[in-house]
Amino acid sequence: MSFAEMLESLPIPILQAPMAGASFDAMTVAVSQAGGMGNLAAAGVAPEEMPAVVDDLRARTDAPFGVNLLMAPPLKPEPAELDAALARLAPWYAELGLPTPDHPNRFSYDFDAQLEALTRAAPPVASFTFSILSPAQVDALHAAGSYVVGTANTVAEARAWAEVGADGICAQGVEAGGHHAYFLEDIEASSIGTFALVATVRQAVDLPVIAAGGIMDGRGVAAALALGADAVQMGSAFLLADEAINGPTWQKALSAAPDDATRLTRAFSGRYARGLENRFVREMHDEQEKVPAYPIQNRLTQAMRAAANQAGDPEMMSLWAGQAIKLAGPGAAGELVKRWWAEAQEVAQALARRTAKT
Amino acid sequence: MSFAEMLESLPIPILQAPMAGASFDAMTVAVSQAGGMGNLAAAGVAPEEMPAVVDDLRARTDAPFGVNLLMAPPLKPEPAELDAALARLAPWYAELGLPTPDHPNRFSYDFDAQLEALTRAAPPVASFTFSILSPAQVDALHAAGSYVVGTANTVAEARAWAEVGADGICAQGVEAGGHHAYFLEDIEASSIGTFALVATVRQAVDLPVIAAGGIMDGRGVAAALALGADAVQMGSAFLLADEAINGPTWQKALSAAPDDATRLTRAFSGRYARGLENRFVREMHDEQEKVPAYPIQNRLTQAMRAAANQAGDPEMMSLWAGQAIKLAGPGAAGELVKRWWAEAQEVAQALARRTAKT
Repeated sequence: MSFAEMLESLPIPILQAPMAGASFDAMTVAVSQAGGMGNLAAAGVAPEEMPAVVDDLRARTDAPFGVNLLMAPPLKPEPAELDAALARLAPWYAELGLPTPDHPNRFSYDFDAQLEALTRAAPPVASFTFSILSPAQVDALHAAGSYVVGTANTVAEARAWAEVGADGICAQGVEAGGHHAYFLEDIEASSIGTFALVATVRQAVDLPVIAAGGIMDGRGVAAALALGADAVQMGSAFLLADEAINGPTWQKALSAAPDDATRLTRAFSGRYARGLENRFVREMHDEQEKVPAYPIQNRLTQAMRAAANQAGDPEMMSLWAGQAIKLAGPGAAGELVKRWWAEAQEVAQALARRTAKT
Repeated sequence: MSFAEMLESLPIPILQAPMAGASFDAMTVAVSQAGGMGNLAAAGVAPEEMPAVVDDLRARTDAPFGVNLLMAPPLKPEPAELDAALARLAPWYAELGLPTPDHPNRFSYDFDAQLEALTRAAPPVASFTFSILSPAQVDALHAAGSYVVGTANTVAEARAWAEVGADGICAQGVEAGGHHAYFLEDIEASSIGTFALVATVRQAVDLPVIAAGGIMDGRGVAAALALGADAVQMGSAFLLADEAINGPTWQKALSAAPDDATRLTRAFSGRYARGLENRFVREMHDEQEKVPAYPIQNRLTQAMRAAANQAGDPEMMSLWAGQAIKLAGPGAAGELVKRWWAEAQEVAQALARRTAKT
């Protein structure tokens, strides 16, 4: 079965976006069980835990699911770079009553080890973000029985994933919440709206396209399919779901978000990600290009974000959210998926009537 | 008849974007005659010529059409600011074998005089970009019999237009080619993808929404309508049309555009606009925030852009284009509109079949 056929066989062509820090196994299983496809955010899963985590998902649903890895580069920063970065963060830690952290021993799990473990675990779908696999790595995943999906912010990135043998492209538009996938050009050159990205990726590569960014309800699902997407991926739309694990401070901020509330920021992690603008985003704005690259800055701000979350202070947390976050609502993830699909079906019927030849 | 009813009465809910420098009366008439709605870019029309220009359109089509004004602020730059700006441009002029221009006597037509003339001319639809009218100005247009459409890049701007009494919102997403409409926040806060913008504007204001940005074909039309737009506005999709007046150098650059070719730049005009990245955009990138505001810089680069165009040199011209420009194709504007609508009808039928309850 091709990946296109697998997507077509889904009762509901809605994928749940892997959201590290906001979703884990419960949401993945709920969405797959409802007829969509859940995706586990496995960036924070240690290589040695990977087989058990994937086997657990397999045990809990017969339906296809995906597992996503963030391709963090193995950076070895100089002590001076860490000192400078920590000095910049010191006032923020002080405000939370915390000492500035020491130099961490490690910044993220080793990607190669995670990939090897994931390949052995052989989930139905393996998806990747922030960089690109080698053809040999893709071949190994295929040999294990996994479909491979590459995340792209540009047409050039989609073509690159097609060239290494990916089975599908997740086309992530500038609307999307959380980290953006760009790996060939800077964020400015990689900020393409979902409308344009889906249309141009579809034209450029002969692979199934999963549309992501700004899709929040049945209207969005119907629109993305009309545009030519084979399926949609929704993230922010799940941020208030029962299975979301982003916690009350983040969720309260989302529910109270004003109009046009999000910004792309590099300040939290060293890589551009979209979230609600808060004091940290504002005050770090002009310095964000100076912070160390992902995953270094991400690790250095980790204790700050955790402490702010603990204290219920949304101003020093990364409140990842997409541009249409005001359309998010509560509910069980499985029920949300079913409701969006029912809406999409109605929208499609209404559109067919409205545009019918007279 | 409400504006919503007027849009519904159009045989084809496709509006042609007013594109100063790329479209004029022939395209407006062709699109309205084909069953869509043409929009004349009247920024370059002198107040005293406005009545004749509008009457001419009325004489050439019984169908509704729009006239768009750019709301250029009446700036009075200091001589020193002009000297600095011209010094920055001097090498570019020199490269074209031209002297650096003198200080211009005027930077744009007086907007108030243009508006007064437009109100007297009473086109079926009057649309505005770069700022916002007062309630009294909207009332005067209504009294004259014109519908008023405000262009918005954000939900806040859409709300502002609703508050002054506009009849409809043109929601211009970040994908859009040419100048962006933002007038409340900076370009960063105003860069919202069409998917998110249409969905959130629709939720926020109780006015018809015209979706703009990234819509290039029948799939895009169907998608925008599914998303909840009352109509779409297409600009870049007409840039290779028979009635386009952007000339062979610009058109050749569009036809040869590589993937992901556009950037937002302030360098040509003092206001962010999207076009193909060329040498001027690249080399002025880091200085673009320093150039004088629109319309000053726009006027100062005018002779450079004209001379480059004359010389067939695309590297010093503003090659305005949207993010999905690679989907543009040639044809008569009226035929393009009819073809896109036929495609949209087919897409809608196919979507209805694909999503039908089983």
